[in-house]
Amino acid sequence: MNLRIQKTYAKLAQENLDGLIISSPANTSYLTNFTSRDSYFLISKKANVYITDSRYIEEAKKNLRGPTLIKKVNGSVFKIIADACIGLGLKRIGFEEKYLSFAEHKKIKQELNKRGDLIPTYGLVEELRQIKTAEELEKIKKAIQIAIKAFKFIKDFIVPGKKEVEVAGELERFIRYNGAGGSAFDIIVASGPNSSFPHHMTSQRKLKNNEPVLVDLGVDYMGYKSDLTRVFFLGKISPAVKKIYDIVRKAQDKAIKNIKPAVQMYKIDTAARQYITQKGCGGFFGHNLGHGIGLEVHEGPRISPKVKGILKQDMVFTVEPAIYLPGKFGIRLEDIVLVTKKGCNVLSGSLSK
Amino acid sequence: MNLRIQKTYAKLAQENLDGLIISSPANTSYLTNFTSRDSYFLISKKANVYITDSRYIEEAKKNLRGPTLIKKVNGSVFKIIADACIGLGLKRIGFEEKYLSFAEHKKIKQELNKRGDLIPTYGLVEELRQIKTAEELEKIKKAIQIAIKAFKFIKDFIVPGKKEVEVAGELERFIRYNGAGGSAFDIIVASGPNSSFPHHMTSQRKLKNNEPVLVDLGVDYMGYKSDLTRVFFLGKISPAVKKIYDIVRKAQDKAIKNIKPAVQMYKIDTAARQYITQKGCGGFFGHNLGHGIGLEVHEGPRISPKVKGILKQDMVFTVEPAIYLPGKFGIRLEDIVLVTKKGCNVLSGSLSK
Repeated sequence: MNLRIQKTYAKLAQENLDGLIISSPANTSYLTNFTSRDSYFLISKKANVYITDSRYIEEAKKNLRGPTLIKKVNGSVFKIIADACIGLGLKRIGFEEKYLSFAEHKKIKQELNKRGDLIPTYGLVEELRQIKTAEELEKIKKAIQIAIKAFKFIKDFIVPGKKEVEVAGELERFIRYNGAGGSAFDIIVASGPNSSFPHHMTSQRKLKNNEPVLVDLGVDYMGYKSDLTRVFFLGKISPAVKKIYDIVRKAQDKAIKNIKPAVQMYKIDTAARQYITQKGCGGFFGHNLGHGIGLEVHEGPRISPKVKGILKQDMVFTVEPAIYLPGKFGIRLEDIVLVTKKGCNVLSGSLSK
Repeated sequence: MNLRIQKTYAKLAQENLDGLIISSPANTSYLTNFTSRDSYFLISKKANVYITDSRYIEEAKKNLRGPTLIKKVNGSVFKIIADACIGLGLKRIGFEEKYLSFAEHKKIKQELNKRGDLIPTYGLVEELRQIKTAEELEKIKKAIQIAIKAFKFIKDFIVPGKKEVEVAGELERFIRYNGAGGSAFDIIVASGPNSSFPHHMTSQRKLKNNEPVLVDLGVDYMGYKSDLTRVFFLGKISPAVKKIYDIVRKAQDKAIKNIKPAVQMYKIDTAARQYITQKGCGGFFGHNLGHGIGLEVHEGPRISPKVKGILKQDMVFTVEPAIYLPGKFGIRLEDIVLVTKKGCNVLSGSLSK
């Protein structure tokens, strides 16, 4: 843990900041091994302070690594944050502009009452999180392995008459009996025309014969996430569905072949998108090709058509090309890759397609 | 739906606002019957505009009630929000200060470029949501009934050797086979000393004999939530545990007896808290007595020691006194009440204690 805090200090020095108020749960967890609702982590060279209330104080004391002080809230949390900043003599105080609401910012500013300046920051800790350590990789791999087991298990429940939500229920149970802390997000089970919604909300619809059933499952293992999508087929696959499936699969292969250190990220997206466009389906693939994954399901790097930046060793992200035909059906295939020294390793490669 | 939007217009008029950018998912859902991630709902007398991207556009078209326009994001969502405000001639544009991040506010303000003022608002739609309609009550009651069935079902799985997380897995499965869309929050299963953490994170710990097991379960039924807590006992109940249990139970009774329209909310909290304090346990009940529930697990009214405001008919909230003895065990009992014309109805009253 200490190395991560040391690296954050270096970031603060670069930005000429005396401290940083962290309100992102994932960033807090990354630096302290713990996070809780309505809590804040103030990091500075003089002291690192975790601020929480009675609901979490005992669990915090037990699990926190990194903070030198723990403060319990009785009254205004914003006054405690401001008082901690003032007490430590912090003048230029960073905050995470993406994770602090307008109201929170306003209240901390009021309590500081000109005894320190609040400076917006973007992605300081998130950037560190993009490169995974060996310890983090082990947890991500475990989250993937549990999900792969669950995909194999669930085949028997993909039968006509079963409701989408019931399939999700079986998965929720199975992953917890196989080491998961829980699901990483609301499991998507999208049958027939529902598969044409990229982020379908799993419904009471019953599966029917001769339909595709898209399952998008993520597992949480000790805070680290997986995120994988497969499409199952009930009965016969129509030629129209088969054709789209093959395009998506080949697009994914093309993207994965390009993954290695120093490559521009947008080129990975382009490799898949160009192929889908060539096949006449460019208008039906609206989202990005992929996203980093770790303590959050969606984190850096973003693999999109316009993103700037190059791939680096030990980045982990999804590759999920898709084609959604409104009112008809949708196909998405999602795997997770690790950038290695000379190429990449498909961490979910053992899950059949 | 239209009545809700009409009532929101009246709120805007009171605040002298031309429009309101809604970024709270629950408020959006309340007004439009739909919500999706990274989406915004701009409400104004001239037009109501739902702004989302390709991931959700088809589902939005199918489900939205209320918006007169749907805009699809291609590029900057903040430019689209600002352009919509400018296009409609809105000058005083409200936003929800609790639900808009500092960064989002900054970007919308930049795009507006002085062609409209952003005015912070707090709780405008949330206040409407505190009084439930008959239609909403039916959904809440259903969410409660599914949870009650699940509590009865789970008894057989509260056995020595079963992991906390496995108990949660059984519940996750059961509620989806009984009509739920999913759980309303991460189900809490807290065994033995873990029950002393008010918001324990369900763990891999195995249940042991002669221990209390606290289960806090919420169900989502068509967007509406329940939230109930019971404590199960494995083997013998020690006199120390029994004594605390009886105090919590009696404290809850005392609170519930006071619930009726026009009573100050803080008095409900006080009724329970004073009794717990008299019994020498005041230092071990740190959180509020209860919270409103509906489209969100935690919404208004807040039943706390210092809150201002009176109870009104058709408010729905939890009553959850507790005593947490650090390192030992904790007891919390949580029911849901509906304020009626002359008193209250314990909606979860059929679940044994």
